[in-house]
Amino acid sequence: MLTRMKSAVANFMGGMMAGSSNGDHLGGSDLPLKYPYTRPEFLGLSPDEIECSADHIARPILILKETERLPWATGYAEVINAGKSHLNEDQACCEVMVVTRRPSVGGDSTPSRTPTNVRRSSLPNGEGLGLMKNSDAEPGLTFHYWALFDGHAGSGAAVVASKLLQHHIVEHLQDVLDILRNPDLLAPIVQGEEPTNHHLTPTTHRGITRAASLRGAAGAPGSPSQPPPSRFFTEKKVQHESLVMGAVENAFKEMDAQIEKDKAVFNVSGGCTALCALFLLGKLYIGNAGDSRAIVIRAGEVIPMSTEFTPESERQRLQFLAYMQPHLLGGEFTHLEFPRRVQRKEVGKRMLYRDFTMSGWAYKTIEDDDLKFPLIYGEGKKARVLATIGVTRGLGDHELKVHDSNIYIKPFLSCCPEVKVYPLTQYEHGADDVLVMGTDGLWDVLSNEEVAEAVTCFLANCDPDDQHRYTMAAQDLVMRARGVLKDRGWRIANNRLGSGDDISVFIIPLMYGNRQA
Amino acid sequence: MLTRMKSAVANFMGGMMAGSSNGDHLGGSDLPLKYPYTRPEFLGLSPDEIECSADHIARPILILKETERLPWATGYAEVINAGKSHLNEDQACCEVMVVTRRPSVGGDSTPSRTPTNVRRSSLPNGEGLGLMKNSDAEPGLTFHYWALFDGHAGSGAAVVASKLLQHHIVEHLQDVLDILRNPDLLAPIVQGEEPTNHHLTPTTHRGITRAASLRGAAGAPGSPSQPPPSRFFTEKKVQHESLVMGAVENAFKEMDAQIEKDKAVFNVSGGCTALCALFLLGKLYIGNAGDSRAIVIRAGEVIPMSTEFTPESERQRLQFLAYMQPHLLGGEFTHLEFPRRVQRKEVGKRMLYRDFTMSGWAYKTIEDDDLKFPLIYGEGKKARVLATIGVTRGLGDHELKVHDSNIYIKPFLSCCPEVKVYPLTQYEHGADDVLVMGTDGLWDVLSNEEVAEAVTCFLANCDPDDQHRYTMAAQDLVMRARGVLKDRGWRIANNRLGSGDDISVFIIPLMYGNRQA
Repeated sequence: MLTRMKSAVANFMGGMMAGSSNGDHLGGSDLPLKYPYTRPEFLGLSPDEIECSADHIARPILILKETERLPWATGYAEVINAGKSHLNEDQACCEVMVVTRRPSVGGDSTPSRTPTNVRRSSLPNGEGLGLMKNSDAEPGLTFHYWALFDGHAGSGAAVVASKLLQHHIVEHLQDVLDILRNPDLLAPIVQGEEPTNHHLTPTTHRGITRAASLRGAAGAPGSPSQPPPSRFFTEKKVQHESLVMGAVENAFKEMDAQIEKDKAVFNVSGGCTALCALFLLGKLYIGNAGDSRAIVIRAGEVIPMSTEFTPESERQRLQFLAYMQPHLLGGEFTHLEFPRRVQRKEVGKRMLYRDFTMSGWAYKTIEDDDLKFPLIYGEGKKARVLATIGVTRGLGDHELKVHDSNIYIKPFLSCCPEVKVYPLTQYEHGADDVLVMGTDGLWDVLSNEEVAEAVTCFLANCDPDDQHRYTMAAQDLVMRARGVLKDRGWRIANNRLGSGDDISVFIIPLMYGNRQA
Repeated sequence: MLTRMKSAVANFMGGMMAGSSNGDHLGGSDLPLKYPYTRPEFLGLSPDEIECSADHIARPILILKETERLPWATGYAEVINAGKSHLNEDQACCEVMVVTRRPSVGGDSTPSRTPTNVRRSSLPNGEGLGLMKNSDAEPGLTFHYWALFDGHAGSGAAVVASKLLQHHIVEHLQDVLDILRNPDLLAPIVQGEEPTNHHLTPTTHRGITRAASLRGAAGAPGSPSQPPPSRFFTEKKVQHESLVMGAVENAFKEMDAQIEKDKAVFNVSGGCTALCALFLLGKLYIGNAGDSRAIVIRAGEVIPMSTEFTPESERQRLQFLAYMQPHLLGGEFTHLEFPRRVQRKEVGKRMLYRDFTMSGWAYKTIEDDDLKFPLIYGEGKKARVLATIGVTRGLGDHELKVHDSNIYIKPFLSCCPEVKVYPLTQYEHGADDVLVMGTDGLWDVLSNEEVAEAVTCFLANCDPDDQHRYTMAAQDLVMRARGVLKDRGWRIANNRLGSGDDISVFIIPLMYGNRQA
């Protein structure tokens, strides 16, 4: 086993330095890379250092250099996997972004005349957007941004997303910049018009009067003296917060669309999960597509800020899709779930199953069709969609197919994040209150509570004024999840198995948000 | 308004006593009723009393007669609506059921020879099943059953479901009776065989070796010394609890299928929500399809035991369905949501919208297609699917169409319940710890916390040995939700509006579960 890994490391060294793509999964491509493989910019590593970091046996933990500092004194640490892929397929990004008004067309800069009515397809070149950061005379809207990307089947998608997702978010925030700047917290329904409160709109659909008779339309709470309730509807009120959520959601979708488009001219290998945090106008927005995780630790208590999207957690969505669009299964898979593979000799017997409508299990008589491979198969970390992939949301993977078939995986994957909001400035935060973001390498072996306890204990023993305490805490956390190499593999506390996966961790102190607001 | 209501009451009296269907919604039918309209059997009302109870102006609160007693001294109270429908469209059921082995075919009663391999379509006649209750020499498996049904567009579906759902549950539990009786808590994967633990099954799908390379397949936690992780999968372990959940889920589906089938020969009007509670083998199972609600109150604390299914809570599921099957919208609706109707003059402007991928909102340029009526429209209790219905799960409604169109609503409605489990006997319960089940008439005007406080205070002032205390508490709760008739309608505490809807409430003391176990 060790021999196999040594040879893997040697291959990697040669491969990476030659600038070739990571060919350990999907094979090579003649197209050039859009960005060369690298580690997060803020680590400031030289090519030599990057090579040394990729030692699958020593697995050195990388942290920020003492001369470097991230916004909010953010802590970061990472470690490569134990040999499952040549490269560390995690990527990270941390930046302060400024949203300014989009450059106007024809010299007129009033918002209604800027080309916001045109739906942009995707960024022609992400780097060009850097120009907008400070080139405008008007002060921009600043936000802090942290993101983790966990790649698979190649490092390309994770690298591209770590360079560009924040710019897509900027683009979508530009659309609503003038609204967000307005102290009125309601968004206008039609852009450029004043938000209207309690405006009554007559409804004209022929069905609407009929509607009154079904289920609560008589208006509960209701009374005989109320006006006819169904002929008028008030407008739905949309808060600024919802616009930021919408911007993050649509930015993920455009990032994914850009990866697809870029593949025509670049080698963008594989796919990746994406977890990002934005601090904007006093609130923290956490967007998640994949199986990374973010938690707030406040006064030692855990507040979960994301949900993982896996074949198990999304089983019913995927089964429902397959049930409605059976051609996506290529005649080779069944949308039903069974507790194990069905064997031919079991046809006619009654076996446990469940479909998209069920959380429980029941018995059905096995038919020939049930011998097909199940859409969702396996348990826990081994659960797979279409026998191929263990995570159900993220970016990229457009070309991923079931091995030796023409069945695409992508229709089952979603690039849409779940966005949660933490109203940061509604709380006071001490120096030990943090947001922890980690890829699944961390959470596979440590529970929320173990992480909270480790971080809280570690920070309590640090000088509160030490700028490096969050970096040290991140290093400690990665160490606890990786463990130490013993005869029988990587071991952590209580002789449990350590994580053999890539591990990346941000520890973000929240008190800076209070200071900034 | 009052005149209109008086006339409504008169119509109702005549209509009901003539045995005709409740024609106030969907018009009459020449087919006979399967069951005549009635109030819950356990109330033991005479036809005269039923007539008197339907006074939309006095709105008398009905409770159990002092001579009657429900299992576990369950409390129940109900009141009719303030005029929104002629009849009280809520229905309720409370029974102790016994599951016995299904009568064998050909004299052989071993489970593998009984016709369990045949998927039964639906009950030929629900009443016939009553035979099974005690006719078997072998002692049956007993469960307690409570259920509420909230009808709309007619009372037929609610009446039928209140008579038959429990029998469908019995049927599905019969399928797994021998397994549930076995002290081993694991269900056998193939019926009739022993459950196998940690059985390794070789997997044969060609995709599976390939799968090892994607997302965690190397097994996190993992180490070099682990065996190749993807060639073998352990069987999924299925607990007895999951079999009961599956039985409840499939019973709802068959109840719905039976209503559809019955409509060929009977007049089964409208649809209904369904909320049921089962106490079986020490656990409480709550199945919910609709907008009724169940909460456990333990030591004054609220534990929610159901989720409501409404156009708002199920927006993304419904939009996703419409996006994938646009023909279901009949060319008249759009799957996009807007905060209000789009007007023709707004085409070309940018308006707030969201699709099935979004929780937040963003702006889009309005096109002609956006002038169609939105699939989901309105807010809170006024939210509607296809401008017609305000609840998205339940039984019946097979013939419901958008007014004056051929667009069916049913494809958007789900009859599948969410089933939650409360491990009753894991806790000690005092005399004031209860399960409260209520139709939306209750919860529209009282919060969980208000209900918990009211019930807890009320019970604290009762003699703990008074068998009627839960009935009195239910009456008090209905009173608090209905309020009293003042000049300006029904008013509750703090001069808030009372509920004008039908209201039905069960209060079920949990200590009897501890005693029974």
